[in-house]
Amino acid sequence: MLTPLKDPDTLDLPGTQRLVEHILSGGVHGLFLLGSTGEGPAVAYETRKQLVQVACEQVNGRVPVLVGVTDSAFQESLNMAEFAKQAGADCVVASTPFYFPMAQPELVRWMTELADASPLPVLLYNIPGMTKVSFTVESIRTLAEHSNIVGIKDSSGDLGFFHQTVRAVQDLPDFPVIAGPEELMAETVLLGGAGGVPGGANLFPRLYVDLYDAACRADIETVRRLQKQVVEIECTLYVHGAYGSGVTQGLKCVAEWKSLCAGALCRPFQPLADDIRSEIIQRVQSWGDLS
Amino acid sequence: MLTPLKDPDTLDLPGTQRLVEHILSGGVHGLFLLGSTGEGPAVAYETRKQLVQVACEQVNGRVPVLVGVTDSAFQESLNMAEFAKQAGADCVVASTPFYFPMAQPELVRWMTELADASPLPVLLYNIPGMTKVSFTVESIRTLAEHSNIVGIKDSSGDLGFFHQTVRAVQDLPDFPVIAGPEELMAETVLLGGAGGVPGGANLFPRLYVDLYDAACRADIETVRRLQKQVVEIECTLYVHGAYGSGVTQGLKCVAEWKSLCAGALCRPFQPLADDIRSEIIQRVQSWGDLS
Amino acid sequence: MLTPLKDPDTLDLPGTQRLVEHILSGGVHGLFLLGSTGEGPAVAYETRKQLVQVACEQVNGRVPVLVGVTDSAFQESLNMAEFAKQAGADCVVASTPFYFPMAQPELVRWMTELADASPLPVLLYNIPGMTKVSFTVESIRTLAEHSNIVGIKDSSGDLGFFHQTVRAVQDLPDFPVIAGPEELMAETVLLGGAGGVPGGANLFPRLYVDLYDAACRADIETVRRLQKQVVEIECTLYVHGAYGSGVTQGLKCVAEWKSLCAGALCRPFQPLADDIRSEIIQRVQSWGDLS
Amino acid sequence: MLTPLKDPDTLDLPGTQRLVEHILSGGVHGLFLLGSTGEGPAVAYETRKQLVQVACEQVNGRVPVLVGVTDSAFQESLNMAEFAKQAGADCVVASTPFYFPMAQPELVRWMTELADASPLPVLLYNIPGMTKVSFTVESIRTLAEHSNIVGIKDSSGDLGFFHQTVRAVQDLPDFPVIAGPEELMAETVLLGGAGGVPGGANLFPRLYVDLYDAACRADIETVRRLQKQVVEIECTLYVHGAYGSGVTQGLKCVAEWKSLCAGALCRPFQPLADDIRSEIIQRVQSWGDLS
Repeated sequence: MLTPLKDPDTLDLPGTQRLVEHILSGGVHGLFLLGSTGEGPAVAYETRKQLVQVACEQVNGRVPVLVGVTDSAFQESLNMAEFAKQAGADCVVASTPFYFPMAQPELVRWMTELADASPLPVLLYNIPGMTKVSFTVESIRTLAEHSNIVGIKDSSGDLGFFHQTVRAVQDLPDFPVIAGPEELMAETVLLGGAGGVPGGANLFPRLYVDLYDAACRADIETVRRLQKQVVEIECTLYVHGAYGSGVTQGLKCVAEWKSLCAGALCRPFQPLADDIRSEIIQRVQSWGDLS
Repeated sequence: MLTPLKDPDTLDLPGTQRLVEHILSGGVHGLFLLGSTGEGPAVAYETRKQLVQVACEQVNGRVPVLVGVTDSAFQESLNMAEFAKQAGADCVVASTPFYFPMAQPELVRWMTELADASPLPVLLYNIPGMTKVSFTVESIRTLAEHSNIVGIKDSSGDLGFFHQTVRAVQDLPDFPVIAGPEELMAETVLLGGAGGVPGGANLFPRLYVDLYDAACRADIETVRRLQKQVVEIECTLYVHGAYGSGVTQGLKCVAEWKSLCAGALCRPFQPLADDIRSEIIQRVQSWGDLS
Repeated sequence: MLTPLKDPDTLDLPGTQRLVEHILSGGVHGLFLLGSTGEGPAVAYETRKQLVQVACEQVNGRVPVLVGVTDSAFQESLNMAEFAKQAGADCVVASTPFYFPMAQPELVRWMTELADASPLPVLLYNIPGMTKVSFTVESIRTLAEHSNIVGIKDSSGDLGFFHQTVRAVQDLPDFPVIAGPEELMAETVLLGGAGGVPGGANLFPRLYVDLYDAACRADIETVRRLQKQVVEIECTLYVHGAYGSGVTQGLKCVAEWKSLCAGALCRPFQPLADDIRSEIIQRVQSWGDLS
Repeated sequence: MLTPLKDPDTLDLPGTQRLVEHILSGGVHGLFLLGSTGEGPAVAYETRKQLVQVACEQVNGRVPVLVGVTDSAFQESLNMAEFAKQAGADCVVASTPFYFPMAQPELVRWMTELADASPLPVLLYNIPGMTKVSFTVESIRTLAEHSNIVGIKDSSGDLGFFHQTVRAVQDLPDFPVIAGPEELMAETVLLGGAGGVPGGANLFPRLYVDLYDAACRADIETVRRLQKQVVEIECTLYVHGAYGSGVTQGLKCVAEWKSLCAGALCRPFQPLADDIRSEIIQRVQSWGDLS
């Protein structure tokens, strides 16, 4: 889920509520706050807490809420986990600490200690493009046996790695392996993946739920049709703006146009230029009534 | 196709003939010589020519033969293309030159001039892990309009990029986009890809052809069953040895054990250690009669 | 300066005081807290504040104190800058935000807004090995004209870049360009650099001050002799431990042995193994009375 | 030394002779052909051989001639080494093979076998920016004991690594460690380096020889003055053009203007645009009579 902002320092409260309702109306199975698309590590702690509070209240138990707690300092991750628990969230999501690179034994130690101390279950998050360090399949297998570690979201984009991971934990039925990049959700679900965390579901939640359902029942014709739309979304919305922030810029542009929430971004990113916004919105309009 | 070697400097001639026959017996639709799995850029030019000659004679028109001509010097690529033409090959495969990195306009110029001059059609080959430089989707689109450029093999492993490329050339029906990593063949064929170039088909060609066929007819149950075997092959054969050469080392180990061809590698790589070889072969035997 | 820790969560208060005194006794010209060697981004905020408070009190105006405020969230950088001001520090040090990569215009905007808002002058810090993003020479030149940006520490290790930066700001006499890697301090000072921030000065402050002084007066014989010792320190202390944390692990091992402070590290890093510690300390003893 | 080209496929013979004479007139101590600045791996083999032949004849024993033989195929490196021997060259220069990455034991094996087989002494060449793989200090130390390996040129730009290497071989008096980047020549010579291989000496050989001499006798004032000019050359000539080829494009632009040789480049690189050429030449003219 996006982090709706009125300006770089201020949460858009009613926008947050509207966006939660919009996403839930599409039938999603959970809500992930403060991931990369949610600009998590760039949001001030006070604002992160506000968002978690407001979103949990709005969801009110209808679906599980997952909260990103990735941090370069262990204690700050734990602080956020404790806040999330108190606010009523169901799970925390933790990537590798992203300042100092580390070897695998240290990564395993970090995650083990975090899972030991966290009052909420931990979902691992592999996103080496941002954090510089990737989990190895062996580390994931080791961590999967921890009773408070409940799955992994893999945003590496490396499907060889993804399938090796699925195979490594295939004897652990309660350890979902979830594809991060939304254009990979369908094909991974077809072949053993457990779902997706598509940023595009901020705008078109029903589309992604339908695609997931079609993949689950191996309805290839529907998968192909909806997947085409997903790639169209990707090629329209996610290719502008500064690298690293382009996805969020594209999503916020359309979210604002759809009156879901305000479109400001965390520093130093800014809304897309007017001409690009017009171009995007024209294209989105041409798709008709997606939802 | 592997490059069968008796020792680092000497082609295994009868091994080459046996390997060609074995691969063709599985029903493959083409043969790619001197790619990365074939150790192309590490093979001496004289040996490359011998391989092309022998393989073309053995294939004798039964399937198209593609020859890797990637080089850091333009003229050497062209020399290999001319030799391949003379030997009876059908197509050349060219990646980005791999010493000096270059910007996209220069890459487009290189490939355009190569396609202009090449006596055989050119298949593009994207493998930035080796060559440092990736084609952009825009460059591929531009090059796809060249009458002597006939498709692209994408070994980036980045399926987001893959699907964007498929979309970019969807109006060009004769421009196949082919997945390089063999574990991605099935899912890309399910969703718009045109095939695969699986190294594992050196050993088990029928398996990969069956998987391809199942994906073409969207027979998900069969895809799932065979894909499991493909991931099993990957996790058994490709994870040992020095990085960069592990795939070839694993394949040559089993190819030698199956008496397909000798198992030497180009300098500086060496056959896997005896204990790893035993472990691999034991596992391969446990699979029973794959082919 | 190292961040002395009794255990991963607890500052070693008397150790901090002793370490400050030891470093100042060597004649250094300033003290940099919470840089990479100080494990800045891995220290809990509460502990960071404690360290800044205690160190500023101990220094008590004898030399300028610089405080690292690098963060992935703008507001948290600013919070630390405000705390540092209140505690009596003289300057803050800010690197590029290290989760989302960004283009140069966004980096310039971030630093400009930080310098606008910061109650203390800002020293730029270039450390792309950790933050993924490097300042360009052009961005530095632009930022150098901001009245609240007072210099740059370059830890890129790229001396071509360093010298180009020196040249780009040569008309701004009050904008020092400082080499990060301690083994480069002497040669950069010989050729236009403004100093160094050597981690080894936690242990041997006099040595580095003498080396700096010798470089300032172009006393090459002394530079060569002392530089040899600096490389010896580097090759003894900084080559063990996990990558990213090896320097701090080596320094803390010797700091503990010299009874300067406790030797714990921030999670997930741990003190070096006993046999490596013994080996290091034996080597350090063989140097006799360095200081 | 640049590789003078009339067009991408044709050596400029008289230009090669003139350029050799110009460089030698500046008092250089050796000539390095077919390095990165010489576009080595992008030059066709026939042209490489022509260049080696012509340059060796022109030098005629006045200074040692070194020939780059880096290749992705072992036998091709050896072929070039044998040709170089026959043509009268004195040494070959070999970097790590640049298609398949490799681990250190394999790199050591490659270089050992090359040195065993080469009819000329081998100078190692570390340029990981192009070849993806860096020698480690340990590998260099091991290789330094081979009787046919005579030194190393380090173009990594990492002076920490450089100084560690100098220290690792300090007991081997006949194993020079030479800085690749020309802006580092002076400071490394001041502190234990053995020289430089400055591309700028194609144009201004006397300047670089004078700088080297001043560094040898620790004449800091002269070093500072000449080093300023060297950084000026760098910032004027090497910052244009496609990355990877910018240095050669800048040098060839001025070489042509000085009537030293023709200015064509290997495919896919092209001479700089006219407006950039004018700008460069105007700046070079403003320096007066450098040589």
